[in-house]
Amino acid sequence: MTTHTPSTTVLGLGAMGTALARALLSAGHPVTVWNRTAAKADALVARGAARAASPAEAVAASPVVVACLLDYDSVREVLGTGNLQGRTIVNLTNGTPGQAREFAEWAACQGADYLDGGIMAVPPMIGSPAAFVLYSGSRTAFDRARPALDVFGESVYLGEDVGRAALTDIALLTGMYGMFGGILQSLALATSDGAPATGFAPMLTRWLQAMSGLVDTAAKQIDSGDYATGVVSNLGMQAAGFDNLLRTADEQGVSGELLAPLGRLMRQRAADGHAHEDVAGIIHHLRKDNA
Amino acid sequence: MTTHTPSTTVLGLGAMGTALARALLSAGHPVTVWNRTAAKADALVARGAARAASPAEAVAASPVVVACLLDYDSVREVLGTGNLQGRTIVNLTNGTPGQAREFAEWAACQGADYLDGGIMAVPPMIGSPAAFVLYSGSRTAFDRARPALDVFGESVYLGEDVGRAALTDIALLTGMYGMFGGILQSLALATSDGAPATGFAPMLTRWLQAMSGLVDTAAKQIDSGDYATGVVSNLGMQAAGFDNLLRTADEQGVSGELLAPLGRLMRQRAADGHAHEDVAGIIHHLRKDNA
Repeated sequence: MTTHTPSTTVLGLGAMGTALARALLSAGHPVTVWNRTAAKADALVARGAARAASPAEAVAASPVVVACLLDYDSVREVLGTGNLQGRTIVNLTNGTPGQAREFAEWAACQGADYLDGGIMAVPPMIGSPAAFVLYSGSRTAFDRARPALDVFGESVYLGEDVGRAALTDIALLTGMYGMFGGILQSLALATSDGAPATGFAPMLTRWLQAMSGLVDTAAKQIDSGDYATGVVSNLGMQAAGFDNLLRTADEQGVSGELLAPLGRLMRQRAADGHAHEDVAGIIHHLRKDNA
Repeated sequence: MTTHTPSTTVLGLGAMGTALARALLSAGHPVTVWNRTAAKADALVARGAARAASPAEAVAASPVVVACLLDYDSVREVLGTGNLQGRTIVNLTNGTPGQAREFAEWAACQGADYLDGGIMAVPPMIGSPAAFVLYSGSRTAFDRARPALDVFGESVYLGEDVGRAALTDIALLTGMYGMFGGILQSLALATSDGAPATGFAPMLTRWLQAMSGLVDTAAKQIDSGDYATGVVSNLGMQAAGFDNLLRTADEQGVSGELLAPLGRLMRQRAADGHAHEDVAGIIHHLRKDNA
């Protein structure tokens, strides 16, 4: 018994688009590729991909079209030259939830079934179990594209709200950059007396992992709106202790600029009458409507 | 066969000092306690602790004196009334490396053997395997106090440089607060469309754990000074992608103030000719001497 797998088109062959196309080829999927600089397709063509001479030809070649370009404007420009009627478009280009919603409207006008996505991996991770990809938008588009999508990593469908994948993607990246800023500030301090960073790193990794329960604690408090029950170290104490962090940075010749905004928010929230509560309540000072 | 355990004195019975004294009692150590507000000792005395009427009496009662007070000035004020000659002082009060070094000089003048420490735990964790306590300063003080110290959690001795425990403690807390700021910013975004934080939290926990390898990668780059080899996603690309994080925060009505400083540092480092390198190089813009 043999099954016929339809072709999948990949538009855009930067590091990520190339990794996506390569993963499809490795999994035995027929692949059609297009890139503005055609030479970037050479290695993939050598491995069996079909080269499309134009975006229109690339779109015509496959029922499922995966776009991984510079930004949403580029996707619209490239796709706009093809006939999208009946096509399933999976847009894995980086963008904001607003851009995803706007794009979905445009795609609907072109008669396409639209799925937006966010890749939680760097290119070398594509096709490995560590990669996961967030999707939102049309459920039929997700179901139709899924045999191809599951090749990239774990497929996580977040529902029909087309902006949810981008929002979730960006929320996760935001958390990572916050952690990364903390890591750099921590390493700058730990090396400020000439000690090696690699000697300190295992302790920092262990400590951050031990503290990762902060996510669940904060999430429960935010959903319930109760920041006052079972507080172990209240905001007033933490705001006072935070000054030691800034003073130490100063003593050691390290800039406190990455830390300062959190200190300001903590003091502001404490001054607003929440010093006895847990620190996660400062999320209300991050929301511009203060909800 | 019975062994005689000498008494340990605990000065300061806030939440942390009380947890330390309680852990010693639970482990069968004779304990002498003192607190400015004497009533705070009642529960410990009921469990077998000896109550000292003054700091001087508390210091005289035990060869090892553990201080856990509001700040270093308080410790000096309290200990200054006693005879510290030949005493082993273990100071677990929060402070900066500079304060620890200054205090060590004062303690030496009083004839005390001085160990500085930083507790990596909240009070309920004291005595559990999850707690660890950093120590630096006199090796003989560490060895003499160790039977008592090992009761609190894992004892980590960082060497004779007396400021190292405070520096390491503060570097770890700094990393935690960076991560925490990232978590709050992430949760603010993920809930900005009305979705519950608890639905998103497991994905964020998983993602942060998957990304915890950033510590080791950055530490190796910092020690070698080589930020250019094996770069997967360079600073130029990351700085551009970072704008999407700020734009999304703005679209969703979430303040970008916790993120903005990292974005500025990334752009500054890229503009200084390091766009092709990895992002960890921005640590050089955190060091005021730019080393």
